[in-house]
Amino acid sequence: MSTYAPTRDHRFSFGLWTVGQVGRDPFGDPTRPPLDPVESVKRLGALGAAGVSLHDNDLIPFGSSAAERDRLVARFREALAETGMRVTMATTNLFTHPIFRDGAFTSNDRDVRRFALRKTVDAIDLGAELGAPIYVFWGGREGSEVAAAKPATDAFERYKEALDFLCGYVRDQGYELRLALEPKPNEPRGDSFVATVGHALALIDRLEHPEMVGVNPEIAHETIAGLSFLHAVSLALWAGKLFHIDLNAQRGGRFDQDLRFGQEDLKEAFLLVRLLESSGYDGPLHFDAHPLRVEDEDGIWEFAAGCMRTYLILAEKARAFDADPRVAAALEAAGAGTLGLPTVEGGYSAEALRGLREETFDVDALAARGYANERLDQLVVEHLLGV
Amino acid sequence: MSTYAPTRDHRFSFGLWTVGQVGRDPFGDPTRPPLDPVESVKRLGALGAAGVSLHDNDLIPFGSSAAERDRLVARFREALAETGMRVTMATTNLFTHPIFRDGAFTSNDRDVRRFALRKTVDAIDLGAELGAPIYVFWGGREGSEVAAAKPATDAFERYKEALDFLCGYVRDQGYELRLALEPKPNEPRGDSFVATVGHALALIDRLEHPEMVGVNPEIAHETIAGLSFLHAVSLALWAGKLFHIDLNAQRGGRFDQDLRFGQEDLKEAFLLVRLLESSGYDGPLHFDAHPLRVEDEDGIWEFAAGCMRTYLILAEKARAFDADPRVAAALEAAGAGTLGLPTVEGGYSAEALRGLREETFDVDALAARGYANERLDQLVVEHLLGV
Amino acid sequence: MSTYAPTRDHRFSFGLWTVGQVGRDPFGDPTRPPLDPVESVKRLGALGAAGVSLHDNDLIPFGSSAAERDRLVARFREALAETGMRVTMATTNLFTHPIFRDGAFTSNDRDVRRFALRKTVDAIDLGAELGAPIYVFWGGREGSEVAAAKPATDAFERYKEALDFLCGYVRDQGYELRLALEPKPNEPRGDSFVATVGHALALIDRLEHPEMVGVNPEIAHETIAGLSFLHAVSLALWAGKLFHIDLNAQRGGRFDQDLRFGQEDLKEAFLLVRLLESSGYDGPLHFDAHPLRVEDEDGIWEFAAGCMRTYLILAEKARAFDADPRVAAALEAAGAGTLGLPTVEGGYSAEALRGLREETFDVDALAARGYANERLDQLVVEHLLGV
Amino acid sequence: MSTYAPTRDHRFSFGLWTVGQVGRDPFGDPTRPPLDPVESVKRLGALGAAGVSLHDNDLIPFGSSAAERDRLVARFREALAETGMRVTMATTNLFTHPIFRDGAFTSNDRDVRRFALRKTVDAIDLGAELGAPIYVFWGGREGSEVAAAKPATDAFERYKEALDFLCGYVRDQGYELRLALEPKPNEPRGDSFVATVGHALALIDRLEHPEMVGVNPEIAHETIAGLSFLHAVSLALWAGKLFHIDLNAQRGGRFDQDLRFGQEDLKEAFLLVRLLESSGYDGPLHFDAHPLRVEDEDGIWEFAAGCMRTYLILAEKARAFDADPRVAAALEAAGAGTLGLPTVEGGYSAEALRGLREETFDVDALAARGYANERLDQLVVEHLLGV
Repeated sequence: MSTYAPTRDHRFSFGLWTVGQVGRDPFGDPTRPPLDPVESVKRLGALGAAGVSLHDNDLIPFGSSAAERDRLVARFREALAETGMRVTMATTNLFTHPIFRDGAFTSNDRDVRRFALRKTVDAIDLGAELGAPIYVFWGGREGSEVAAAKPATDAFERYKEALDFLCGYVRDQGYELRLALEPKPNEPRGDSFVATVGHALALIDRLEHPEMVGVNPEIAHETIAGLSFLHAVSLALWAGKLFHIDLNAQRGGRFDQDLRFGQEDLKEAFLLVRLLESSGYDGPLHFDAHPLRVEDEDGIWEFAAGCMRTYLILAEKARAFDADPRVAAALEAAGAGTLGLPTVEGGYSAEALRGLREETFDVDALAARGYANERLDQLVVEHLLGV
Repeated sequence: MSTYAPTRDHRFSFGLWTVGQVGRDPFGDPTRPPLDPVESVKRLGALGAAGVSLHDNDLIPFGSSAAERDRLVARFREALAETGMRVTMATTNLFTHPIFRDGAFTSNDRDVRRFALRKTVDAIDLGAELGAPIYVFWGGREGSEVAAAKPATDAFERYKEALDFLCGYVRDQGYELRLALEPKPNEPRGDSFVATVGHALALIDRLEHPEMVGVNPEIAHETIAGLSFLHAVSLALWAGKLFHIDLNAQRGGRFDQDLRFGQEDLKEAFLLVRLLESSGYDGPLHFDAHPLRVEDEDGIWEFAAGCMRTYLILAEKARAFDADPRVAAALEAAGAGTLGLPTVEGGYSAEALRGLREETFDVDALAARGYANERLDQLVVEHLLGV
Repeated sequence: MSTYAPTRDHRFSFGLWTVGQVGRDPFGDPTRPPLDPVESVKRLGALGAAGVSLHDNDLIPFGSSAAERDRLVARFREALAETGMRVTMATTNLFTHPIFRDGAFTSNDRDVRRFALRKTVDAIDLGAELGAPIYVFWGGREGSEVAAAKPATDAFERYKEALDFLCGYVRDQGYELRLALEPKPNEPRGDSFVATVGHALALIDRLEHPEMVGVNPEIAHETIAGLSFLHAVSLALWAGKLFHIDLNAQRGGRFDQDLRFGQEDLKEAFLLVRLLESSGYDGPLHFDAHPLRVEDEDGIWEFAAGCMRTYLILAEKARAFDADPRVAAALEAAGAGTLGLPTVEGGYSAEALRGLREETFDVDALAARGYANERLDQLVVEHLLGV
Repeated sequence: MSTYAPTRDHRFSFGLWTVGQVGRDPFGDPTRPPLDPVESVKRLGALGAAGVSLHDNDLIPFGSSAAERDRLVARFREALAETGMRVTMATTNLFTHPIFRDGAFTSNDRDVRRFALRKTVDAIDLGAELGAPIYVFWGGREGSEVAAAKPATDAFERYKEALDFLCGYVRDQGYELRLALEPKPNEPRGDSFVATVGHALALIDRLEHPEMVGVNPEIAHETIAGLSFLHAVSLALWAGKLFHIDLNAQRGGRFDQDLRFGQEDLKEAFLLVRLLESSGYDGPLHFDAHPLRVEDEDGIWEFAAGCMRTYLILAEKARAFDADPRVAAALEAAGAGTLGLPTVEGGYSAEALRGLREETFDVDALAARGYANERLDQLVVEHLLGV
């Protein structure tokens, strides 16, 4: 039996802001003291994680001098070197400071937009310096509560402009950096512009360099919109755009909870792990979650260990599921395998159409066919329950 | 003062299935007798609508003979000619018959997929024969409840295949027909593949002929996912993809209600009408709603008249809003006009970046700036309330 | 190892309408032929269920003659006798027929209200004749889409009046029948009057004979409102009002799905089974779910077997969970056991207050305390996953 | 035409925490400086409000000395005296300090529960000293994310115990104070125990002194659960339990937004004002909302003025609506007035039942009847739009 002990090879990563979350919420003050990023690197490394990710201001407080910046970076790189941990992703904090209250790339104030671009350029330099292969964009403040105040067609144009500018910079610098958009339907803004994985892809497709940019889907974010995360990741994979992933949990369409991976909707978590493990996705398995506010510092590391352990348990179950002949039979009864077959070999042609028109369909028999989904789903449940 | 009386010029259209809905729901039998499509055309024409839309089976029952089909079509065209009404959109019913229980273009059964393609080809012919300029695809059954039974990456591939095939057919026939995808997050399936306007655009961008295909957003459908319909339509407009629109109302993230236009969320309805009227959109203003189940036949026509009348009232209010100097001042205080300005003139260049890096930002002043959204929104509310 | 084979002792029951659901939905025709109730009794009995429940019209079509009624009842009782199955609950269909389009007990039409009362009296007689110990009221049509049309204060008064009347009848007849209200937030009506378990209790508390009436919580219904079903059942138990329960599954706040028990939210299902098994609840374990529309008749019985089997698996896990010393330690670390202790022994008194005022609290220490919920929840997950 | 200028007679009140909200959210730092409570009293008084409400810590920081407390109270009372403003409601902050991370009355730590009781006793004294007629309980931290850690049946018992204790204290002191529970389904806790107005009533009904305790429904809170606020207030009124009300706005089932009254769902706001104005409710019209985070200080007062102005506009519309003969006709067509009539005069009796059984119902005619809700709702919309 497996011990479910994570190693560097498992590619697990945590945001510095996740274990470092101090337990503040809209109604409450912090319940835990701040964590030193160096401490986080060491503790996560000891638990078996492969790396960390960070916002610029997770490491370097807003407004730090250049000297202070360099000191903090040097100290952090030492910890990385010492532990063998990597920076798996970097991103910009464009949401905490009040300057971004109306948006960053889509603020109505052009000076704020310009400031946001410059802050991001600096943060990309930091990401590159730390060796991050992926640079994420979550547009936390890119949205509105008062729709009349912010014409959304203009907002999409400004969003594109900012991403095009930053792609230009990355190319110009020759950075080996791929960009990834992280969608979210709402919170902290009333309605976000890049609401779902679909919206992110639609924006990416309209960039000057769409090939540089993919998506970073997050379980909680699609769940807030009541959407299937499995479908979201499948769409990203189908489009060749799964550049990064944010694992956590969320209980339905309410405020953003960022719960421990596996804390809610274990079936979707299981099917997600199965999909990731079979998809060829080789990026970080990144946890964007945080310990519950009721926890003390011990709880932080229980939380982090739990995220990784549950992933490994589910991965083992996915292998067992796919090796089970009863599952193979149920998948066949459901016709799951035949969805991969072309409906019309070779696509449209006058001849193919003629074939279709001449075909005889036994409508009654096709209408009477059952798809045995109950049986298959019961097998999913029983594998999950380990019986 | 306006009389808010609709005319053909207002481009209002109703689905035959909307006024024809008999009041059946998951828990109840019909409360109204079926309506003859010819009667619907006449009554809607008399109320000032410009046209109707239809599924193939709204006019021609599933399984009708060719002779019966021709008779029904001829009779229907007579009614159109007599009333001056047009068919503004056509679509295929790929969801009512049990043959489509597991999907149409994404059924796990290849024969069902082929049957669905043939049914659609026939229905496109019908649409073309009736002069419909737009052909809509709502994938009501394209989704799943048991995710393991239907690999979503395969489903997206089959969806694309079907649309590519049908675009091929339309081109081959030389039909003047534009296609439009209608997204919906769920219902009747547990999770739909084309969940939002974003998802629809992402799929369209990956077709062989993306220029032939746009979107048909529906108020109720984006609302079910808790998303801003205004943002959805803005995204479609920004992408040049607003080919059609479905107007109705919905009360939050619950079962699909298809209420009378304006019945819920009047503010979003107002801002939507304002956007449509100023956007250059010149397609049909199409109502995909139905009378409440508590209504008798009189209620059907109250419902239809109400949809159009509310639109016209809101359009007049939108003009008044945009002509109000207090609104102009509030928009300026919010900075709404400046979001249209490029953030960096000319986009990325080393020089532009240098300029950005050398710029001095008064961070404290920018952070202290208010955006006066409360004042603007109060003006929206007061225009809406007519005070 | 258990075989998870249900027996009569497990008290499992299914509505005739659950296995009998023909697969009709708002967008689709039936996919399965109707089931003879006698067949359902036999098949369910063979699978190990203890009984069935029914609406009057599940057995006796609306408008049947007295002779036809008696024939159908006799035939049904024979099947019960033959199989040893019981009728565990009866209820009235006050939602399918168009006469109830505006409500039954709260219809704006007084004649409809009177008709609904009489139909219910007859159906209570049927329930008593069949030996049902519980009579359920789900007010499917008691609600509104147009709030102005139905003053809700009047509606609550009419609801109370109807229940008082029916309690009067049950007492008068000397029936050994307990009544149970089943709440649901919406669907088929826009907003239901008895929206949650809390609403049901508030209504019951205002009846003439509150002691005769309890609640029938349903997983899907509380989930539609985004509420914890575990809290709902706990509230009902605390109030001594858990008279019946409807087990199924639902994926978040969308249309009513009535999925197989355990199909979604396995963690809540597990904690629910644990609560029920330890609570002394000895009523039927009743499944109000239906097979997926993609199923054929075989799928019906897979579905039914799956509901029971998952319950039994979870019950075994609940026993193992409560016997695990690591769990006991985690519960202690979380302080779960001390919530049962009175906060102030003996309740309010001037003296107790003085004690409270004189007490010294180490606020910093109390504020720093962690509650170890992450560790406990991880144990829940691992018991569930069977590792 | 009205000027919609509020006066003391309109009974408008604002929480100190509402105008005083500094714009912090889960992802962002404050955007506005703190407001001195004295300043808030003066500004609100100048705008026409009649009073303010407060948490103990809105006036007196946690941990203040007795001397500091007295100084702050004296200064505050001066401002009240000077402006003629009243304290319309008082409440306890049992959610901000980390000591309450696991709950206050339902914390798993008995010492925390005792501390919470004592803090509340002190805060009740403060409320009484300031002349507040209502004391509100919002159980912000009374809930859980990890259900296994907090047995909900015990939690309900502790909740009751705390309220019984505090009722005892209020009686003992002879305070003229009525208590009101404020429900909320979630946030900041994953699931709150007192989730809806129904839950609050069910808890109140089980107290030792239910007559002392009513409810304080809040628009945003019921809306988060997708429930009709109109139904919630109607239930409270029907039960004689509407002791207080929190007016604001919320956009569907997402994070708690606390928007300006009237910012969303104007139709429900209109029907609510109509209900309140005709119900005899004479408590404060209390706004529990806050200015958008994008606002500066000017925006605070625009926000506050807007809340009151929209209420007055809607109240005028409600009067016009009820005076409109077309509305009277539509209400009659809908049968709205007849819902107030008893269904069975005198309630249950054997004779009444016999009458019911002998009555002849024209089922087909009753089933065919329409309820003209579309027409009525269109009139609601047009009154709202002012046409």
